[in-house]
Amino acid sequence: MTEEKRRSIGVGLIGFGTIGAGVVKVLTSNATVIEQRLGFPLRMVAIADLDTETDRHVDLSGIRFDSDAEGLIASPDVDIVIELVGGYDVARRFILSAIAAGKPVVTANKALLALHGKEIFSAAGEAGVDVAFEAAVGGGIPILRSLREGLSANHIESVLGILNGTTNYVLTEMERTQEDFEVVLKRAQELGYAEADPTFDVDGIDAAHKLALLTSMAFGAELSFEQIPTEGIRRLMPIDFELAREFGYRIKLLGVAKCHREEGAGERIETRVHPTMVPLGSMLANVDAAMNAIEVRGDAVGPTLYYGAGAGEMPTASAVVADLIEIARELQRGGAGPVAPLSYLAHHLVVKPLVAQDELNGRFYLRITAADEPGVLAKVTGALGAEGVGIASVVQKSGAGEAARIPIIILTHRANEASLSAALAQVDQLSDVAEPTLVVRIEEGD
Amino acid sequence: MTEEKRRSIGVGLIGFGTIGAGVVKVLTSNATVIEQRLGFPLRMVAIADLDTETDRHVDLSGIRFDSDAEGLIASPDVDIVIELVGGYDVARRFILSAIAAGKPVVTANKALLALHGKEIFSAAGEAGVDVAFEAAVGGGIPILRSLREGLSANHIESVLGILNGTTNYVLTEMERTQEDFEVVLKRAQELGYAEADPTFDVDGIDAAHKLALLTSMAFGAELSFEQIPTEGIRRLMPIDFELAREFGYRIKLLGVAKCHREEGAGERIETRVHPTMVPLGSMLANVDAAMNAIEVRGDAVGPTLYYGAGAGEMPTASAVVADLIEIARELQRGGAGPVAPLSYLAHHLVVKPLVAQDELNGRFYLRITAADEPGVLAKVTGALGAEGVGIASVVQKSGAGEAARIPIIILTHRANEASLSAALAQVDQLSDVAEPTLVVRIEEGD
Repeated sequence: MTEEKRRSIGVGLIGFGTIGAGVVKVLTSNATVIEQRLGFPLRMVAIADLDTETDRHVDLSGIRFDSDAEGLIASPDVDIVIELVGGYDVARRFILSAIAAGKPVVTANKALLALHGKEIFSAAGEAGVDVAFEAAVGGGIPILRSLREGLSANHIESVLGILNGTTNYVLTEMERTQEDFEVVLKRAQELGYAEADPTFDVDGIDAAHKLALLTSMAFGAELSFEQIPTEGIRRLMPIDFELAREFGYRIKLLGVAKCHREEGAGERIETRVHPTMVPLGSMLANVDAAMNAIEVRGDAVGPTLYYGAGAGEMPTASAVVADLIEIARELQRGGAGPVAPLSYLAHHLVVKPLVAQDELNGRFYLRITAADEPGVLAKVTGALGAEGVGIASVVQKSGAGEAARIPIIILTHRANEASLSAALAQVDQLSDVAEPTLVVRIEEGD
Repeated sequence: MTEEKRRSIGVGLIGFGTIGAGVVKVLTSNATVIEQRLGFPLRMVAIADLDTETDRHVDLSGIRFDSDAEGLIASPDVDIVIELVGGYDVARRFILSAIAAGKPVVTANKALLALHGKEIFSAAGEAGVDVAFEAAVGGGIPILRSLREGLSANHIESVLGILNGTTNYVLTEMERTQEDFEVVLKRAQELGYAEADPTFDVDGIDAAHKLALLTSMAFGAELSFEQIPTEGIRRLMPIDFELAREFGYRIKLLGVAKCHREEGAGERIETRVHPTMVPLGSMLANVDAAMNAIEVRGDAVGPTLYYGAGAGEMPTASAVVADLIEIARELQRGGAGPVAPLSYLAHHLVVKPLVAQDELNGRFYLRITAADEPGVLAKVTGALGAEGVGIASVVQKSGAGEAARIPIIILTHRANEASLSAALAQVDQLSDVAEPTLVVRIEEGD
């Protein structure tokens, strides 16, 4: 600080909600340690939000605060723009506006990046400006940095994990209390773990957004989240958790992405989001409540795993400020040189063919809801056998649920997805079968 | 590659053992993806090792290979030097020589850095040269990068974990087979999981080396590994694992470092390496075999965890090459500017006071080896009670072990280390007590 050659870097924040307040708190309370690490101060200079009335209970001294986001972007003392508006149109406009002004952007907006990432990263690449988004996946877990830097020597083989804290909380609670989905969801909403409209979370859409970003980072593959086969957790019942444990598994909503490398055929990408059984003793099985964890396998490093809070004010702010620090260091060094590592995403994405779900093989947990009458089991197992789906275990729970309906639980041997679909099309048409069969895929991992 | 402005970066390797061979393999097999990520090629140009005869079964075409390490360092086409010699004197000399030649260094030598880190990082700081050592801690796990970059917004509160794969393998096997330490160690040696002289691993020294590096990175504290109270795993017996599980724990060799921040008193550092009980459902409890995992808590991010292979040819090579890639990018950008992030370690280390072990409080598992005679338990519990060490559970296993000696297992309430030491000094002097009491500390974690 005796030297004046290193100026301070100014930060502007658009969108002053929970995460934004967390960012201000981190920059204020950890200002000293951040300045030590950078060698110069990193200061919040301006905040823009349409709501300038609500008290966010943070110290705003020295910070301009109004509703003029474009003015903030244009302001000469704002070197880096944080976008925490959320949503699509407005956020997209602000990010593109900042890029056009030559200002790097930090965002946590996975939905926006999953939908408009290509446009945004192309604009950033052309302008030679960084767009950082560590906070968009895994909250405070430095998963994108680990993919980009820590595992940079590897061909990444797979990325899979628990990417949504709300659903992991609901699944953990359903298993613990043996209560129905709707009951647990309602409590999660009351406790603030789930939104009033839980669709994005419980239907797996948020996980698919994050998986699309991870897939791009891990495999250099251009991918829209809409291409990811996605199933949520609404259909799970307490009996599924009970039997999963009996079979040696726990049920987690996983996002799964794998890179298939076939001799001479190039790379193809497999992605999917669905409830999944993972072995009881595995690391992923022990990720409880609202925590996230992502397993990454590289050809040299083997399996690795990254665990932490996947959401929340302070963990998300931790990731936003880590991005700010990295960009601030780049700016201080004169970022006009070769493009900074942060944005390499934009330049290397290639459309890679996808592996159709029908091609995949695996083991499956099936819950068939059938009339409690003789002969049903024979028809079900017959249909599976005719399609070559072998049965490892059958559990028939008489008397559970409505008197006339019983769950038949089947654990299959390794089988093909297309064969399973064909068999279940027959099973679900049986007059004895009352509702579509529930399928939970099994991921053995290590 | 149509542009010629970005030259390739040349790498020289000193020490061509297992890890060195892994580095050559990664640079060869993943050359394409590494060049994509960097924008230019990264090539191994020279290798030096006293043993130029042994066939390492790697492709050496285009690579000079002789025994002249100083010649390699001086060679104009060597831009980065990898030190994988191991040991102290020779490795230290090569690293200082490379720094003097203005060449950045990548090393996996935790023992050297733990002992001579100050000298090496000072020399590197003065010369403006990077010394990178991701491979020195946690093998392929990008833990140092996560501390340095991913969690850079945080005050780090604690770093603790399973830092040594050999001991974790032995502990996992002892628990699984209920065999004695010596039996399992011998098998680990036969399988290549343990060295012929296992002292560094089983006595906790290797873990202390790594913990010293983690402590420096996490807290900016200058610390010698000799200052870390260190206990190994030699005294553990099968009964300890059995009772740990009954009490709801597993036993792991943990390295623990915490930063104590007291109002107005500045920061003090707590470090220790010892067998530790961790709760059965915790992430650390599920780290088996030779895997490593490190839990890092930050004031903003909360608890995070990083898991992967802590040793081995390819995982360690993954970390070495990640360092090469980062340094190569810096060199290409013209590393003469502001000091690169890699070496910030050198500039911010401060001697911080240590917390004496006597000040610490915790719960303890005690195994007292006593004569199977009336009154022993009363004397033992009396000694503990007199020092204020409360007892939560007692298990007395009659008939186990030698007829005349029985283990008395005690789980304490939260108590002070100094009080426990005072009580055990009395207990171990009892004529009925046959050997020093085994203490296993309990770390409740999250």
